[in-house]
Amino acid sequence: MADKADEKKITPRSQDFAAWYNEVVLRAELADYSPVRGCIVFRPQGFAIWENIQAELDRRIKRTGAQNAYFPLFIPESFIRKEATHVEGFSPELAVVTHGGGKQLEEPLVVRPTSETIINYMFAQWIKSYRDLPLMVNQWCNVVRWEMRTRVFLRTTEFLWQEGHTAHATREEAEQETLAILELYRDFCESYLAIPLVWGRKSAAERFAGAVETYSIEGLMGDGRALQCGTSHFLGQNFARAFEIRYLDQNNQLQYVWQTSWGVSTRLLGALVMVHGDDQGLRLPPTVAPTQAVIVPIWRKAEERKPVVDACREVYQNLCQVGVRVRVDEREGVTPGFKFNEWEMRGVPLRIEIGPRDIAAKVATLVRRDQTGPQGKLASPLERLAQSVTELLEDIQQSLYRQAKAAMDQATTEPQSFEELRAQMEGEGGGGFANVYWCGQPSCEEKIREETKASCRAIPLNQDVPQGPCIVCGQPAQERAFFAKAY
Amino acid sequence: MADKADEKKITPRSQDFAAWYNEVVLRAELADYSPVRGCIVFRPQGFAIWENIQAELDRRIKRTGAQNAYFPLFIPESFIRKEATHVEGFSPELAVVTHGGGKQLEEPLVVRPTSETIINYMFAQWIKSYRDLPLMVNQWCNVVRWEMRTRVFLRTTEFLWQEGHTAHATREEAEQETLAILELYRDFCESYLAIPLVWGRKSAAERFAGAVETYSIEGLMGDGRALQCGTSHFLGQNFARAFEIRYLDQNNQLQYVWQTSWGVSTRLLGALVMVHGDDQGLRLPPTVAPTQAVIVPIWRKAEERKPVVDACREVYQNLCQVGVRVRVDEREGVTPGFKFNEWEMRGVPLRIEIGPRDIAAKVATLVRRDQTGPQGKLASPLERLAQSVTELLEDIQQSLYRQAKAAMDQATTEPQSFEELRAQMEGEGGGGFANVYWCGQPSCEEKIREETKASCRAIPLNQDVPQGPCIVCGQPAQERAFFAKAY
Repeated sequence: MADKADEKKITPRSQDFAAWYNEVVLRAELADYSPVRGCIVFRPQGFAIWENIQAELDRRIKRTGAQNAYFPLFIPESFIRKEATHVEGFSPELAVVTHGGGKQLEEPLVVRPTSETIINYMFAQWIKSYRDLPLMVNQWCNVVRWEMRTRVFLRTTEFLWQEGHTAHATREEAEQETLAILELYRDFCESYLAIPLVWGRKSAAERFAGAVETYSIEGLMGDGRALQCGTSHFLGQNFARAFEIRYLDQNNQLQYVWQTSWGVSTRLLGALVMVHGDDQGLRLPPTVAPTQAVIVPIWRKAEERKPVVDACREVYQNLCQVGVRVRVDEREGVTPGFKFNEWEMRGVPLRIEIGPRDIAAKVATLVRRDQTGPQGKLASPLERLAQSVTELLEDIQQSLYRQAKAAMDQATTEPQSFEELRAQMEGEGGGGFANVYWCGQPSCEEKIREETKASCRAIPLNQDVPQGPCIVCGQPAQERAFFAKAY
Repeated sequence: MADKADEKKITPRSQDFAAWYNEVVLRAELADYSPVRGCIVFRPQGFAIWENIQAELDRRIKRTGAQNAYFPLFIPESFIRKEATHVEGFSPELAVVTHGGGKQLEEPLVVRPTSETIINYMFAQWIKSYRDLPLMVNQWCNVVRWEMRTRVFLRTTEFLWQEGHTAHATREEAEQETLAILELYRDFCESYLAIPLVWGRKSAAERFAGAVETYSIEGLMGDGRALQCGTSHFLGQNFARAFEIRYLDQNNQLQYVWQTSWGVSTRLLGALVMVHGDDQGLRLPPTVAPTQAVIVPIWRKAEERKPVVDACREVYQNLCQVGVRVRVDEREGVTPGFKFNEWEMRGVPLRIEIGPRDIAAKVATLVRRDQTGPQGKLASPLERLAQSVTELLEDIQQSLYRQAKAAMDQATTEPQSFEELRAQMEGEGGGGFANVYWCGQPSCEEKIREETKASCRAIPLNQDVPQGPCIVCGQPAQERAFFAKAY
């Protein structure tokens, strides 16, 4: 019989964060390495989380008026070259198909690293008049970027994402769309994934290749490093001019459209692990957890088995009826302790234990994944179990957010000097967010990056702060910005 | 103001089926040609149909116990060569990535034409014991096959599909799985897509490269040609041996697993057009239609507009509440006739017209897409409109199936001689299904193919027919088989 003792403990998070991360991903069976360089396999446990993310995000995106579509995987190499900054940004990362059907191709095909070029080529065919605007499409697909150093979920050669692309009649409308999507992403991450964020404009150095402005949401991982969790780009007329996307306005004048593009990817799976995970493994917010509650029958004597399992199945039925994603772990040949560890590793938010004594007392024992020790354990009467579970799941969602928010707040400081900033980034906390005055000069940003490894993550929107001295050059600065070491 | 007269009529179906098909696909905005050879763009109208197919099929597949996962797009070229028949079948169709990140790759990567090889490589890592079986995964993804002659939805270089892959402890279990999925596909196509089918085993010549047996469902298109709509393969131990997928059985003996794979693709969109479409355009079964009912306000005088539009919006709300996918076409600047034509072209199953006289009489006029002329038109009291619409949509679903079934039955014959078979295949009806005795010899199948262009589409299961003479060689035949010219 497999037992607690059989289970090798994982590396503690505080000891080696990177090793801990990889072990959780593998042991929770979220993903596996593949025989293809830089590509991973999304195993059912991991893919089910992505399916929940997709379903919720898709609903929210469609509510904005965007429609899903699908564009070719391959892009003629010449297309990538049409927008000057775009080609510069993506050229080093391209995978290129040179042979098809046994013959060398006349023009090589690039495997899409992102689809601005091919989508905007089609937009040019479809957009004729102001009546055709706004045109808003979204695509769920795989993309490929040849990465030198890869890391499961965070940076892989192939990854999955959604990419939205919109065209508008006016600059204002496109700018509004860019910010509306940033807010959509922010609310999705904070409320659905329970991941607290900072957000805002990117510096020029961090802008998307081809964008006029890039906005992003940034989470803080358990090791004090920031992770870009989603981006929304205002493209201006850059691609409209490269692909000749023009419309006849109401005065019968030809005008270039104004555009946006925006995306989030399977990288969010990495964020979930690194924000919520602990030394027992994954901890999933109930909203996104494929299994929200697991029922473990507990019995020793053979005659106890049937009543215990029957009680578990009845609870299972009741919870299904109120919409809880629940399962019963009836496996034989493994101990309850082994099951506890396994479901904790997989991040199931709530465990329900039912044994002979529980049945006698007409209760079930509920064990929260978000709290350890006696605090996280309570007995609930069977007759109101469905309600207790529903309420607890909501509470766990809030609690995971609060824990992550407290950790982020604690790791966010306002250094007053370059030396303070350097000390923070070199400190044991791994850096965290430094909220500093910055004059906006690329040279000051560059100095921070070179000397502290921190980059500008986000410049908050609508700032209403007094002027202060740039943390690097001391010149007057109008804005504060968040700097951090980043993935 | 755009008018009926502005709309160019499409080529009649009876005049040039191929031209009619392309025009419907383009005019209904299901898809568009792309600048990449053999690749198409799925426009929102077409992709929304695919999303409905995905949602329903995914539910049904998950109910069998399969879980979704995602495997790499790229496959090392050497993997494809590991199963002898597989490489022979797929080599001529491969797209090959030779360069990544600006450098030539040591081993070229193939863009997946199907994923047996990469998935089975992973299965070999995951399967250790009989406890790990059955292992059942499904993947929704894009695949690439370098096709010489392409046709929108039916045969394109890149297409979208689901591919299921399972491993079992015994031959019987794998065979059962193969047939269970065939039945799942059959019921899905017939009940959800209203596409009548014949189904059964494939002949050796039509087998999947690497399978022991292939089973398929076959629809009959409006031009009398068959379309393979889905396949389910019993792989035996072919891939298990190529990839060394073995498990320890209950007696601690190493055994090779038994496997299946199965898939349906975006080709189903082509089947929907070619089975249900008519000279006015697409006709969609209500189950799969992105818009099930469209409400068109009809008014002439300015003062009529508000009460008519208000009534339309009220009906819209009522229909939304009972779960009908409905929209109101409030566009100004186009006539009702223009709107009628456009929604007919897009295949919306039911049109709801509301004008001042309807409001006065407290009715709405319902116009069915599946029936032309006065038959298809009826007035329904507003107070029970939601019920009428729900009932009508169900009736339209049945009616489209009945129409397609009648057409298929009429085009299915039992020729008694090779000459009758030849005459049927050369006839004006385009061939249809010929249900014939066939001895099973490849040489007889080859003769039919060469002289009539018909191939063996399906050999029905569990036949209980008396022996008869093979339609080619006259030798005793145990089975009947469906032959047809096919896409």
